[in-house]
This record gives sequence, structure tokens and C-alpha cells, in this order.
Amino acid sequence: MIITINNEASSEARAELMELLCRITGSKLPITTTIMQKREVVALDSGMIDAQAERALREQSAVEGLHNPKTAYQLASKAFQAERTSIVIGNVHGGNPVTIGGEHANPVIMAGPCAVEDRKQLMETALAVKNAGAQVLRGGAFKPRTSPYQFQGLGIEGLHLLAEARELTGLPVITEVMEPEMVEAVAQHADILQIGTRNAQNFPLLLKAARNSKRLPVLLKRGLAMTIDEWLLAAEYILAAGNPNVILCERGIRSYDPQTRNVLDLTVVPLLHQLTHLPVVIDPSHSTGRRELVPTMSRAGIASEADGLIIESHPDPDKALCDGRQSVRPETLERIVLEAQMITNMIRGEVSVA
Amino acid sequence: MIITINNEASSEARAELMELLCRITGSKLPITTTIMQKREVVALDSGMIDAQAERALREQSAVEGLHNPKTAYQLASKAFQAERTSIVIGNVHGGNPVTIGGEHANPVIMAGPCAVEDRKQLMETALAVKNAGAQVLRGGAFKPRTSPYQFQGLGIEGLHLLAEARELTGLPVITEVMEPEMVEAVAQHADILQIGTRNAQNFPLLLKAARNSKRLPVLLKRGLAMTIDEWLLAAEYILAAGNPNVILCERGIRSYDPQTRNVLDLTVVPLLHQLTHLPVVIDPSHSTGRRELVPTMSRAGIASEADGLIIESHPDPDKALCDGRQSVRPETLERIVLEAQMITNMIRGEVSVA
Amino acid sequence: MIITINNEASSEARAELMELLCRITGSKLPITTTIMQKREVVALDSGMIDAQAERALREQSAVEGLHNPKTAYQLASKAFQAERTSIVIGNVHGGNPVTIGGEHANPVIMAGPCAVEDRKQLMETALAVKNAGAQVLRGGAFKPRTSPYQFQGLGIEGLHLLAEARELTGLPVITEVMEPEMVEAVAQHADILQIGTRNAQNFPLLLKAARNSKRLPVLLKRGLAMTIDEWLLAAEYILAAGNPNVILCERGIRSYDPQTRNVLDLTVVPLLHQLTHLPVVIDPSHSTGRRELVPTMSRAGIASEADGLIIESHPDPDKALCDGRQSVRPETLERIVLEAQMITNMIRGEVSVA
Amino acid sequence: MIITINNEASSEARAELMELLCRITGSKLPITTTIMQKREVVALDSGMIDAQAERALREQSAVEGLHNPKTAYQLASKAFQAERTSIVIGNVHGGNPVTIGGEHANPVIMAGPCAVEDRKQLMETALAVKNAGAQVLRGGAFKPRTSPYQFQGLGIEGLHLLAEARELTGLPVITEVMEPEMVEAVAQHADILQIGTRNAQNFPLLLKAARNSKRLPVLLKRGLAMTIDEWLLAAEYILAAGNPNVILCERGIRSYDPQTRNVLDLTVVPLLHQLTHLPVVIDPSHSTGRRELVPTMSRAGIASEADGLIIESHPDPDKALCDGRQSVRPETLERIVLEAQMITNMIRGEVSVA
Repeated sequence: MIITINNEASSEARAELMELLCRITGSKLPITTTIMQKREVVALDSGMIDAQAERALREQSAVEGLHNPKTAYQLASKAFQAERTSIVIGNVHGGNPVTIGGEHANPVIMAGPCAVEDRKQLMETALAVKNAGAQVLRGGAFKPRTSPYQFQGLGIEGLHLLAEARELTGLPVITEVMEPEMVEAVAQHADILQIGTRNAQNFPLLLKAARNSKRLPVLLKRGLAMTIDEWLLAAEYILAAGNPNVILCERGIRSYDPQTRNVLDLTVVPLLHQLTHLPVVIDPSHSTGRRELVPTMSRAGIASEADGLIIESHPDPDKALCDGRQSVRPETLERIVLEAQMITNMIRGEVSVA
Repeated sequence: MIITINNEASSEARAELMELLCRITGSKLPITTTIMQKREVVALDSGMIDAQAERALREQSAVEGLHNPKTAYQLASKAFQAERTSIVIGNVHGGNPVTIGGEHANPVIMAGPCAVEDRKQLMETALAVKNAGAQVLRGGAFKPRTSPYQFQGLGIEGLHLLAEARELTGLPVITEVMEPEMVEAVAQHADILQIGTRNAQNFPLLLKAARNSKRLPVLLKRGLAMTIDEWLLAAEYILAAGNPNVILCERGIRSYDPQTRNVLDLTVVPLLHQLTHLPVVIDPSHSTGRRELVPTMSRAGIASEADGLIIESHPDPDKALCDGRQSVRPETLERIVLEAQMITNMIRGEVSVA
Repeated sequence: MIITINNEASSEARAELMELLCRITGSKLPITTTIMQKREVVALDSGMIDAQAERALREQSAVEGLHNPKTAYQLASKAFQAERTSIVIGNVHGGNPVTIGGEHANPVIMAGPCAVEDRKQLMETALAVKNAGAQVLRGGAFKPRTSPYQFQGLGIEGLHLLAEARELTGLPVITEVMEPEMVEAVAQHADILQIGTRNAQNFPLLLKAARNSKRLPVLLKRGLAMTIDEWLLAAEYILAAGNPNVILCERGIRSYDPQTRNVLDLTVVPLLHQLTHLPVVIDPSHSTGRRELVPTMSRAGIASEADGLIIESHPDPDKALCDGRQSVRPETLERIVLEAQMITNMIRGEVSVA
Repeated sequence: MIITINNEASSEARAELMELLCRITGSKLPITTTIMQKREVVALDSGMIDAQAERALREQSAVEGLHNPKTAYQLASKAFQAERTSIVIGNVHGGNPVTIGGEHANPVIMAGPCAVEDRKQLMETALAVKNAGAQVLRGGAFKPRTSPYQFQGLGIEGLHLLAEARELTGLPVITEVMEPEMVEAVAQHADILQIGTRNAQNFPLLLKAARNSKRLPVLLKRGLAMTIDEWLLAAEYILAAGNPNVILCERGIRSYDPQTRNVLDLTVVPLLHQLTHLPVVIDPSHSTGRRELVPTMSRAGIASEADGLIIESHPDPDKALCDGRQSVRPETLERIVLEAQMITNMIRGEVSVA
């Protein structure tokens, strides 16, 4: 059950409502609200709201309305918010802001190396991806690696380099956070907090990331074998914790054919646009695991109406410390950016048949 | 090991080669050859060709060359034939021929009802899909149904109706054949023999379909959990049996999320174009199982460089005897055809950024 | 809807019922009945039986009762037949008959080479597996191989050798049939017709195998990515075609880990025993693909209450023409047989804690 | 590369080795060693050890030997430690210790409710599972739930209740830890730290759990779509962080059939016993998701040579706040314990055929 709060409510009426909500939920903590489309909302387990509680809620002057989407996820549901969420990225640490999601936004291309390796590599790559037309710089400072013996990232030093790259290029920065204790450190430098596929149901991390002090958006990658319902419920953890700015990222699901690293499930894009208002981006690099497939699948991703792409790019992929096999060169990235724009124009009807 | 035969070889030289091949393989049957790109070729298990056999082969004047692709599939391999295979459809029973595959062909849209239900439904649909711009009519006369209690198709009567629809519209016809004994009956009426997902490794059926007396092409759907290697080896059965005209059709693979019928694996399109010269088409209807996802995934399929689409379309989907939930209306099909053409133009560089 | 027919019905009453059934179903063909537990039954699509048809059926003196299991499969359902089906194998061609399935039968061990290679290999293996305690000889004469360049089996000659091995050892024989046209040829020699995993939804083959002239039982392997419902519906094709003797065989499903060939899904055994009365056997050879895992998974299979095992065994696995890596030596088979019996005794409560 | 350290080495020799290791790895932190089978060992990325480094290591008097298992996991490998690891549970907080793993240990049965709900429920269940013969009490205080609106566990209060239940029954306690910051709080009360399936690659959590101050063992559940290699590498994180006591728990992998919650992959048990020395337990509750399948799959689990079982049990499953559908009653648990012992005796050869 979602309760929308009257923006005009007096502070007494608001306090009364909060008390009632604490009584209903048995909570001793302050109730968390979320601002969505300029409305303040609270979502509760519908099972807690019996007829009496519902009546009591409706009688509150601070209550604007009650909404009951039929799905397990509530705030993420398109049945609750029909208009697509539009998120401004990069307005905190002084980069060039860019908007993702919403009805008429252009696709946002995020690109950069798998891992931040050193200053030279990062600055060079950052300039190159900017020149290629990307609007956001990606790069891992903390790397979740399958083996403890693999390169684990530069850590805090990597964050500083990312901030420096933003200063150099103006590109806002997205980087992964792997544990609750590091959320604030990452938030000091990043413009988007990325939650990786292995942490897609790491709920303490989701909650901590949601509540980052900079109110940064969170990009939530799909878990390796996650259903869409599970994914939207993981997003719901973030939304219900007070952060309305969640970007969903499809990065391939596990399947049986060793030819590609994962199976890129592009059908989720139109499906998610039916189910949720949140923006959806595609990661053609981790899904395919093969550089030569990235341009085509980027194009197909935009054709499926993704709101953006997140692409691994490296000036010298064969020397990358991590995932070089799936990194594209900046000149390839440039073509990807161009085609993304053309497909978008076509979908909008701005191009007619030749 | 693939042996290409000298087109200029005398009939004696050719006969001598055939005898040698029978000796090497221990076969008492005549050796099957395949005409690919105007060359006559034979593929043998490389394990059978020891150094002595290879020397003997090289000494034959009828032998033009020996080729050893590194993959288990041989004739299907791009390492053997670099140029994409281009197949003419519909030049046998008097429809309007259309070309699929090859370097510069337009995407071919095949559309029609899941099942042929009756004359009125089929003729109406055939005219509608033609008007919408489809070039091939699809429709099932023999339907493999999960349950023995479901409608199994009109059988031979359905074939006659399909032939009648071709006469009416000029559209070549594709329909499924489910058992070896019916190959010839289907070949009398169809322009493409379709092998369904459940029969993708029904090898006796593949062989019989390959050898159909009309030399019709075969569209081979991917099995529900088939690897790409297995798929290309199934195609290899058809090629090695003398029929070079195989169209591969991705129709979704089985996965864990009940939201869609299957997972459409679009990444196979660029991957197959690297591995094989055979044309690849996408079936957005069976993969998604949801009508409202078909237009977007059709567009994404063409963006991934598919050579064609096969789409279920029905004038009144809710009344369809079979798979109505995934059938699009003709007006939707029209938009799909238009977008397919626009994407193709864009890929070819005939459209510039608006 | 299942109609059970009165055994005492006069031939006129029976004929009248059949006429009514033809009218209801619109069928011009004679109605197929199946003898299950000594009752003659007919299953129809419940959607065909409206209130009027049901009334008409109930008025027929030849109708004993109407049954409507809630599942899509009907004759296979435990809701229709609570008692487990017990099938006699080997009473047609003169081997030593053995019973599989039913409440108190011992587990039946079927063993032998993947493929029949030659007389010496087969006779030696047949004697060895008999001595090891197996009750049925398995061996492929027609081999569905992923590649057209792999050994495809000895064909008819293999069938003759299998019949000879039965004469030598008394063991009934199970072998695969791959195409409808070969059903009768195989039925002349085999005691069980095996349908392979690639043909699990090859419906024309299922129907033809069901109707084999020797009334042999059919062993139906699970398809590589088949749900339980799909599997039971494939079995239903056989049952509804008049053959009540279907054995289900779990042989592993496709999954993502390359360490084993497939994932052996042992949970289906207790699940199938809840859903259906048909016997269930386990194939630990094709599922694991690794010889050294076969004994343990055989034991686990019997512990999960499988009615039998089908195991690849070869006197010299490393020289096998096919699947040697997963074939066990006869001495290993002997231990498997022994442990199967011990587990069975334990489950029946004939062994107490030491 | 694994370096085993000479137990007799002087402290100077040891310090010299540690310095060398810091030089080789470029680490400024002290090198972590692990005690395995009474040997002190260090594992390094083999890529760091060039010929010169290897020579330098071999010259160290503190070095007993160098070992290079061929697999990506090193300390977990059976190629490094042939003898099975045997772990004592419950010797820290005063419960009745029990041993899991090793060559001749009895299977350890862990049982209890999905979630700790309240004192009465827990004490009642603890006594019941003890009477049924279980040796370890399971129960969730922190619950990772798919939806933010589901019951999330009692938290710290749940830990206190678990400790109280241990005092009451003597049963050591296993409970899940979901985030690094809570590791120490959980370690104050639990006897085994459980890492759940969603956190199987939550590397910061693995490292923190490994280094818990009580030196408690860690039970590592398999991720929902984790390969065996990934699983052993996750275990390697724990081993390489200094904790040799890891228990692997198979709890079902994601697959396509909705009939069961997951697919229980029992074949991993014999496979893991070949690859690693670590104990393996089976969770038949979460894998099947259906109470009525638990006893049979428990029996099959022990027959596949699992070192233990972890089972959800509740005195009144239908009233459980969490996962009631898969919880067995204590009387069923008793039968499971009994059968586990009988199968174990049989495997050891202490029972002969009746």
C-alpha cells in the first residue's frame, strides 16, 4: 500500500500521520518517505493495513491518497507512477550534468575502462571516450573478482583518479561500491553508485547505497539469474529507503552456451518499460564478453528502447588488466554513439525511409 | 575435410575420385556432393583422412582443393565459405521470388497465422500480411502441440489452402514439416520447409528434408536449449546431404523467468554472421510469447543484422485457435516492415543523423 | 475428460458409445481406447465435452464413469490412476521377463554399451552385464549423433546382434528408435522401444512407437530442457494412442556448468511419483557424462526411489566408439547392482540400523 | 602457488620469508597465513612468481615446499590437500561439539526454523529437533528477503534467543550473517557463520566472516547460478584469509521448471569430493521448496555422500512466518535422521544385503 502525502499538510497533520504509521507498522524508527515526482510517499506491506487501519489513514488530513499496485513491488510500479522517471546525473560534484530516462531523453552513453589502472590510462581513456561522444565515465576502483588472486582494483586511489578525470573532462563518473562501509567514501567522488551483479540482492548494501548522503542515483545491475520481479523488488529496497533515482542495468543472464559470457536479454527493455517507470540501460560488454559483438548489440539495445548503454572502452584493450577481451577502442565507441543517435531519431519518427 | 571438385574434370576423373572416396569412407552408397557457390563439394570426417589418403586425394585430377575448417561443422563454416549465402525463395511453385541472405539483401519479412484454420481466415490474413509488406506467408498445416488434446492443424487440407493463398497473393509459403514421410507432400506445396524447435535434432527428418525433390530451402529453428555448435551441426546434416540452402531461425531459448515464453538471444545474430555464411532470421513471436513486445523486438532483431523476421500475425488474434496471445494485427505488422527497412538503410549508411 | 468403459457392455452398447464419441469429437477415424489396469478407457479434450455431451455420455450404458483430472495430462495422472503402473518387459521375443514399476518391484538395472559396435564386443558385454546382475541389455543400433560426421550406429545389423545377445543371455533388450518408419523394424527385435532426449517431443514418432505391433513398452527420455508437464504430456501422447506401458527416464537437463554433461535432476523422482503412476528410471551415465560419478549417482537415484537405472557399461571403455568416458566397467556395475538392492531393502524397512 | 612453511623455522627465518613475500607481492600489509592440517601455508597468485622469485623462495630455510595445483583455486584443491578436512563445530560457546567432514565422520544433521520468530517457537523447535536427533540448530535472525515488505528477522534479539536455545539443548547454532559490520555480533552467539546464496560472491563479507574473532567455521551456500569453479574460488577467499574451516552447502540452482523452487544438483557432492577436501552439506528444503519432497531428497543426499544436511523444521509449518511450505515436522525429521544413519552404514559396508 502506498500513501501519498498532501504537500500542503500542516506539520502537525504530518506528525500525526507519522505516529499513526508507526503504530500500524509497530516501528520505533522514524518512517522513511520518498519524494517521487514531487510527491512525498510511503510504501507499506499491504498485509499490515486492515480495514480499520485503512479507515484511520483515510481520515488523516495529511493523506492525499492510498494506492495499491497489484504487484509485490510498489513504488517501482508503473501502475503507481505512469510517467517515466527522469534522473539528472552529475549535478553534485561539478561535472556536466546529463539526464537519463523520461519520455524524450536521448540515450546516455557511459563508457570507460573495466578497472582504473593508473592515472595515465584513466586520463587518456576519459578524454578518448569524451571525444567519442560518451556523456558519463565508467571505471572500477573496487573490483569484485571471481578469484582472490586476481587484481582487485586500486580502491580509494582509484576514486581520486576518477574525480580527477571528471575535472579534466567534465564527465560525471559511475563506479561500483561493494560494501556498506564504503558507500560514503565512494559517494564523495562518484556521480552514480553502481551495484554489481553479484550484489544485486545484497540488501544491506542496497539500503546503505540508497541512503548515501549526496543523494546520488544508484545503478542496479541485474543479478546473474535474477527474475524481473526479483530485480524490481531489489530496486524497491532502494526506493522505499528514500531514494527515487534507480537506474536498472541489464548485463546478461547466465545460460548454457559457452560461446558468449552471458545471454543478453534485450526483451527486458520493452518489458520493463511496461512494468516500471525506472530507466533501463544495457551493458553489451559484460553480456557478450566479446569486443566484436559490442557495436551490433549496442545498436540492438537502443533499438529495443534502452535509455542508455554502459560500455567498456580502453585505448589498448589487449593490455587491459581486466576484461580487455570485451573492451572496444574509442573509434568503435564513436560509431556506437552515432548509431545510437540515429536509431533514436528513427524511433521518434524524425527519419523517414530513404 | 572438405574436397572441392574441379568443375572441368572429365567424367572419368570424377568417377575415379568417387571410387577413391568410397574406398576411404568404406561406403557402398554413392557419395553425396553439394553445390555451394557453384562449386561441387564433399565433406568427410577428417578423422578418416590419414596422410596416405590425403596424398591420394591430392593426386586426383578431379580434386581442386582440400579444406580443413577447424570447427566440427565444415560446410556451414565461414572459414570455408567467406561469402554470405544468398537464397532465392519461391521460384518453384509460381510465387513472387524473394532473396534472403547475402551481402546486400533487404530483410525478408515472413508473416501469417500460427495455424491455418480455414480458407476464409487464411485468405484474409494472406492478403493483409501482403498489404502490410510481408514477402513470405507463414502458416502451420501440421502443428506440433505440447498436448495430444490440442488442435493439431488441418494437415494436407492446410497445405492446399496455403497453395491457394500463394496463388491469390503471389507470396511464397513457409510451413512446418514434422516427419520424414510427409516431406514430399509438404514439398509439393511449400516454398520453404520449416523444421521446428522440437525437431532441431531430429536427424532423419533433417536428412529427408534436405533431399526434398523440389530442392526447396530449409528453415531450421534453434532447439529450445541448443548451443550454437549443435545448431550449426544440425545445419551441417542438411548441407552435407546435398542441400546448400539452409536458413537459421532464432526463436528464443528456455530460461528461468516466467515473464516471457523464452529468452530471445539476439546476440546469436552477429555471432552467427562470424561463424557461418548462412542467413539468420528472428522469430520475435515465439520467443517473447507476448504480442505487445513483438514490434520492439522485431526492430532490435533487424538492428542486430538479422536477414529476416518470421512473425505471427492474425486479423483477430483473440480468436486464433493457436498462439493468439503472441500474434500481431496486420496494422502492427505494417509498422514493423517499415521500421525494418529504415533500420536496414541506417546500417547501410543511407541515412544520416537528423 | 476420461471415459471408463463398462467391461460388461454389450457390443451394441459399445458401438453406440463409439458413435457418440465420433460425433462429439468430429472424428471420422475409429476412437482409440487404452487398456489401463484392466479397464478400457478413452481420453478426450475436456473442452469438447459441454454439458449436453456430458449428459449424453452419462446416459450410455457402456459408460462406467467419467473422470476429470485437473491436469493437462489425463491418463498419465495419479489423480486418475492411484496405483502405480507395473510393466512386464521381455515377454515377447523369448527373453527372461522382468517387471518394472508398481508398489513392490525391485529396481531394474538396464546396462550395456552406448552403441552396438560388433558381435564380439556386444556378446562379451552382454555376458558381463548379465553376470554383474543387470536384467536388461541396452545398446544403440541407431545413434542420434550431434555431428553428421560421427559414427551413426550399425542400423539393422545392430538390431540382429541385439537379438542374438538376448538369445545368448536371456536378457531382454532396449534400443532406441529414431524415426517412425523404423518402429516396426526395431519392434521385431527389441523388448523396449527407447525414445531419445532429442525426440522427446517428436510427436509422430511417439504415436508410431505407441502403436507398435508387438505392444512393446516405450521408454521416454526427458527432453534436454523439458518441464515435467511437457514430459507427462509427451507420455500422454503414447497413452492416448493405446499404449499404457510408458517408462519415464530422467537423463539430466541442460544447465550452465561445464563440469558435468548435464544436471541430473533427481528431485523429479519423488515428484513424478506424486503426479503419475508411471515408472521412473534414472540414467546416471548421460547426465553426469563422467564414469567416476556413475556409481554414487546410481545409489542416489535408487535412494530417491527410482524404479530402475539405465547405465552405459563397456568391457573396455577407453576403446568404445561412443561415450566411453561415461561407461563403467562390469565390475563397477556389479557393485552398483548390489548397492541398489541394499538401498531398496533399507527403504522397505528390511534393514535396521547397525 | 602455495608455500608451506617449515614448522621448525626460527622466527628470524620466518620473518625473512615474510619480507620476501611482501617484496614479491608488492604488499605493505602483513602476509596472511592459514593453518591447514597443522601446516602453516600461504597462497599467492602464481602469475607473481617468476623463475627468480621461485628460486629465492626455495632458498628460504622457512620454506618447506612449493605447490602448484593446476586449478584457479589453490588451498581448496584436493591436489594440494588430499585428506578431507574435518571441522569441529560448537567448541566455542559451550554447546556439545560435533565433527563434520573427514573420512569417517557421521553425517551431521542441522535443523530448525527458517526464521527465529519468538522465544516459545524457538525453544520448542530446538527441543524437538534435538529429540529428533539433529546435532546442530539452524535459525535465521537476519533474513535476506526478496521483498523489502517481508519479515526481515528479529536481528540481535534473534541471536540472543539462539544462544539461549543452545544453553537449553546443548546444540551448537548456525545462523546467517548478511553484512560485514554484523560479523562480530553474530560471532558472539553463533557456532557457524552462514553465508547465504545471495551473498555467495559478496567478497567483503566473505573476508570479514573468514576473519571472525572466534575463529568460527563458515558455511558457504552455493550461489543461485554459480559454477563449481566460482564456488570453490569463493571458498578460496575464506581460506586465503586465514580460515581453513569452510563447509560448502548445495541448496539448488535456478532452472526453468516452476514445479520446484530450484533444482537440487546432487551430482556436485561426489564431484566436490574429487576436487576439494572441504565438507559438503545438502539443503533439501530450499532446493525443493516442498516439504513432501524433503525426506526423499535427504536420503538421496546422504546416498550421494554428503557430509551433512541442513533442514528447515517447524513444529507447526503452516503457521511459520517464513518458508513454512518447505518445513518438515519434527517427526519427519526423526525419520530423516534415522535413514541418514542407515545409508551411511550401508556405504561403509556395515550392512549386508538382507
